[in-house]
Amino acid sequence: MSLLIVGTVAFDELITPFGESGKIIGGSATYASLSAANLYQDISIVSIIGEDFPEAKLELMRSKGIDTSGIKRVKGGKTFFWKGKYHNDMNSRDSLATELNVLEDFDPILPEKAREAEYLMLGNLTPAVQMKVLKQMSKRPKLVIMDTMNFWMDIAMPELKEVLQEVDLLTINDEEARQLSGEYSLVKAAAKIFEMGPKYLIIKKGEHGALLFHGKDLFYAPALPLEEVYDPTGAGDTFAGGFIGHVSNCDEVNFDTLKQGIIYGSALASFCVERFGTEKLIDLQRSDLHERVMQFIDLTHFDMNLG
Amino acid sequence: MSLLIVGTVAFDELITPFGESGKIIGGSATYASLSAANLYQDISIVSIIGEDFPEAKLELMRSKGIDTSGIKRVKGGKTFFWKGKYHNDMNSRDSLATELNVLEDFDPILPEKAREAEYLMLGNLTPAVQMKVLKQMSKRPKLVIMDTMNFWMDIAMPELKEVLQEVDLLTINDEEARQLSGEYSLVKAAAKIFEMGPKYLIIKKGEHGALLFHGKDLFYAPALPLEEVYDPTGAGDTFAGGFIGHVSNCDEVNFDTLKQGIIYGSALASFCVERFGTEKLIDLQRSDLHERVMQFIDLTHFDMNLG
Repeated sequence: MSLLIVGTVAFDELITPFGESGKIIGGSATYASLSAANLYQDISIVSIIGEDFPEAKLELMRSKGIDTSGIKRVKGGKTFFWKGKYHNDMNSRDSLATELNVLEDFDPILPEKAREAEYLMLGNLTPAVQMKVLKQMSKRPKLVIMDTMNFWMDIAMPELKEVLQEVDLLTINDEEARQLSGEYSLVKAAAKIFEMGPKYLIIKKGEHGALLFHGKDLFYAPALPLEEVYDPTGAGDTFAGGFIGHVSNCDEVNFDTLKQGIIYGSALASFCVERFGTEKLIDLQRSDLHERVMQFIDLTHFDMNLG
Repeated sequence: MSLLIVGTVAFDELITPFGESGKIIGGSATYASLSAANLYQDISIVSIIGEDFPEAKLELMRSKGIDTSGIKRVKGGKTFFWKGKYHNDMNSRDSLATELNVLEDFDPILPEKAREAEYLMLGNLTPAVQMKVLKQMSKRPKLVIMDTMNFWMDIAMPELKEVLQEVDLLTINDEEARQLSGEYSLVKAAAKIFEMGPKYLIIKKGEHGALLFHGKDLFYAPALPLEEVYDPTGAGDTFAGGFIGHVSNCDEVNFDTLKQGIIYGSALASFCVERFGTEKLIDLQRSDLHERVMQFIDLTHFDMNLG
């Protein structure tokens, strides 16, 4: 068993109504792996960084059981950097800087062990890069999950659709599901997306929770209403990481383990947004995570006497 | 035991992407009472109509166990009329006509029996009218629930706050909760609204479900994702009617009965939007309602092994 996460390892700089983060580590693979590591410890990352990325942060990942040997460091290169400013409602943001740097030439080469991973998460990257990863797998993983975004639908729909044919589970938000399917109803959107390849679909709705579709089966996990959202950056990747971390740990793909994965992912995401960046994911105690999961159980539980 | 519903009995004319309804009956008290009647049969309405409102529709209400003697018919008057057009996403609409007519002079006089109701729903009306109803109650009902909207917050906030002091449970949508409280976080908004009087708060989030707050207790009932929303008119009033109908039927106000009420309200609202107007609420079978409630149970159910 092992879990391979392919995505970005990056620098972020965040401005929120609560303050400024300065330059901190971010990226989809960073958030996803640090989230998954709370549930599962046989994780590899494939990504690319520049000379400026601190070795201490890679060491931190390794201390959590994350194999970083698939993270290529480009000599003289600069790490992918994103700077953004959140508006007062924390639901919308402006990008102030997006410097692709070494990411522009990302041509993923999977280490031998990574090719044999049984669980694969393709973070939000160009569909061509996602496809290159899939082609290097020595055998079909038990579960391939993939994240994408409207940007790739706008500029690379044919390539995106090719990758989708090879994917078991797609995670996108509600607007992206509507764009990808051309259907406003999410039930109809799911049916159309199933025709494109995936057997499972997770629609992320932010503060409104997440929906899991599989055939006619449907699961709605609400998000925990929070007193304060301090920094929403990485919440989606944290969710996906917690999800695949739990499923990898169970080593069983069925509607029950996927539902549990969504609860773990939601719980981890609810921690993630309480601080800047990955801070909260790193020093999270198992008991805190369990307590949060119990809150999710209470949140939707009701007894019904249908007499 | 009895349930008093005060609100509008009206004509609507609806244009949706699926067709036009023509002139049909609507209004908050109409939707709420026809919804509640699926769960409870000792219901009275207090409202006002013109000479043009068909007696056959009142007779239909009576056949469902709804006492219509508190609906004042104004000779020579015209019934409140609203015409609206929904956009393609069904989440936004334009008002094409709003003719208050007899509603403009609505001075509610409660019949003797209505004054003794143990459950009271104040539909969305001017706060001054809501207060007049409260003052006529011969004893404090076991539960007073109230609906309102941003319009009254804009033009009658002081009167609205006076009524709120007398109310046990407020139902509003998320934007209205933010406007009323001045807080973006719904958790913080709820705390502020509790200081205004209500002990319970239901935040309606449409396709994203509904939240129930009480002290530190929290319940999130997702909405059932639907293949098609045919006509969303009256969904909020149908929800509130189903909610108070169930609580009246239990004759017990606690967090468990309120949670069940939210599930019944959500289930009835999910039927309401499947056809124009009140059509689906009128010929609903008990078995269909139970089946839908079972779908809500399945929708959020998960088993968690916290090892």
